[in-house]
Amino acid sequence: MRAIVIDKPGGPEVLTWREVPDPLPERGEIIIDVAASAVNRADALQRQGFYDPPAGASPYPGLECSGVVAEVGPDVVGFAPGDRVCALLSGGGYAEKVAVPWQQVMRVPDGVDLVEAAGLPEVACTVWSNVFMTARLRKGETLLVHGGASGIGTMAIQLAKAFGSRVVVTAGSPEKIARCLELGADEGIDYRREDFSEKVRADVILDIMGGRYLPGNVRALRTGGRLVVIGLQGGTKGELDLGALLAKRASVHGTTLRARSVDEKGVVVRGVVENVWPLIDAGAIRPVVHARVPLSDAAEAHRILESGEHTGKILLVG
Amino acid sequence: MRAIVIDKPGGPEVLTWREVPDPLPERGEIIIDVAASAVNRADALQRQGFYDPPAGASPYPGLECSGVVAEVGPDVVGFAPGDRVCALLSGGGYAEKVAVPWQQVMRVPDGVDLVEAAGLPEVACTVWSNVFMTARLRKGETLLVHGGASGIGTMAIQLAKAFGSRVVVTAGSPEKIARCLELGADEGIDYRREDFSEKVRADVILDIMGGRYLPGNVRALRTGGRLVVIGLQGGTKGELDLGALLAKRASVHGTTLRARSVDEKGVVVRGVVENVWPLIDAGAIRPVVHARVPLSDAAEAHRILESGEHTGKILLVG
Repeated sequence: MRAIVIDKPGGPEVLTWREVPDPLPERGEIIIDVAASAVNRADALQRQGFYDPPAGASPYPGLECSGVVAEVGPDVVGFAPGDRVCALLSGGGYAEKVAVPWQQVMRVPDGVDLVEAAGLPEVACTVWSNVFMTARLRKGETLLVHGGASGIGTMAIQLAKAFGSRVVVTAGSPEKIARCLELGADEGIDYRREDFSEKVRADVILDIMGGRYLPGNVRALRTGGRLVVIGLQGGTKGELDLGALLAKRASVHGTTLRARSVDEKGVVVRGVVENVWPLIDAGAIRPVVHARVPLSDAAEAHRILESGEHTGKILLVG
Repeated sequence: MRAIVIDKPGGPEVLTWREVPDPLPERGEIIIDVAASAVNRADALQRQGFYDPPAGASPYPGLECSGVVAEVGPDVVGFAPGDRVCALLSGGGYAEKVAVPWQQVMRVPDGVDLVEAAGLPEVACTVWSNVFMTARLRKGETLLVHGGASGIGTMAIQLAKAFGSRVVVTAGSPEKIARCLELGADEGIDYRREDFSEKVRADVILDIMGGRYLPGNVRALRTGGRLVVIGLQGGTKGELDLGALLAKRASVHGTTLRARSVDEKGVVVRGVVENVWPLIDAGAIRPVVHARVPLSDAAEAHRILESGEHTGKILLVG
């Protein structure tokens, strides 16, 4: 098969499409003929040499894909060759074939084409596990989403609104904010012009900035609030005001999806299929796609990602 | 009645025993004839003017007491005059009588005398709500308790051991560590001589130091670890390594008991009566009492607290 290979760390140009050995299914694994994959910020970090794949993962980038089941290994439950699926991967999605534990594989929701489905696993699993499983967002509570126009942001807006919460987003331009409001957000804050921590009080905050936003995020939490940090685009360290945290009886959670065990990912994936897929089947939540780029030209997709101009997912079509 | 009054902020000498008006029972409240109260660090902060009672609370210090029910207001459930009880208070325990919502009142556990019972509500509710309700300590996990010889520490050791966890404590002298080991702790670290963050990895940390311990506490957390900060003796702010928090999928929680609503305290109190009291009834957990001091001499009790030489609770006998 062919895959995108990173021979040395660097810019988008190091992503090379070439012939590599096919994956073989281990016990409990499914081989998917990849129809599409999608770009995540972690892929760019991996390309730059800052985020090595976990032990046992494919060396090729790509944390999600869609496609057709080509082969099933021993002890696979619930899937057979020919099934149309999408999957949460620990790597290897930028390829013509990928091996994945069956626990991380999902049916394609109704009304979503096979290519679009490639952009759903990461955003759905990230939002479900962080906002709903970890932070336990409840009906009537306010969710603040930083980067509301990102793939994760667009899913968080739709899912939190579908579950009856109020949603406030930050984004970097009036156009992005308008897009978030169209998706259902109640309020948008242009972070280039305003200090979110003076404008919003939230029960749950989904944050991708990390250190630089930590003081403002704690300030923006309500009593009983939960801050979930899933990205460190604003640095790894920050000052934590524990006095405020105690007074508010609040909490700060750091999480990643990729490093979890297959069983832990399986719990998240089952939660997504039970709770998120029915909303997509019914048309209440739509995948938000910014662009479709040929998988062989992953470099171009990374350039779009790093320009920061996109709203929603960038798909890689095989 | 008489109570300990703080006329102006200051040292232990500002605690004055004098005549004040009796409390009257509001709807849902019980009047307790106080047999004993107990000293908490928050009382010393209140005395110094750093911790005002929450709105509606008694102006006198004292977050817990034991005694006999003297009177019940309308809508009180489950208690009658003459009952021997102990209670979690939002203030007013350093007095001959105190009014308290019935949700915060508990029976006296079997085998505990009425005076000893005064030292149980704060430690039991604090440990139960933080270690078990918030941090969800599980059997087989390791709990690190800072200040293992404190009232909270001695309860945390016994309760975590009773529920099948491993317990590591820090304390400031070999004598205090020996006392913690007698109570069941598996390992003790003398913080004056050793860096705990190089010696222990814990699933749950119960911390009273705050800012100064934050980096070490995060370092000491295991994957999935939960740090619960309930005191700020080492400062209110500290540097949080979010990179480590994400890599470990860990969380930092700040909590206080006193500022919670009556209903929230009621949930904690019911959890304590259901889960902790049976262990005390059976003799598996014992109250640890350092000294009994007359209530009228609360100043002396505060001097003992502030010397830092005690192990367990300092009781104030009415």
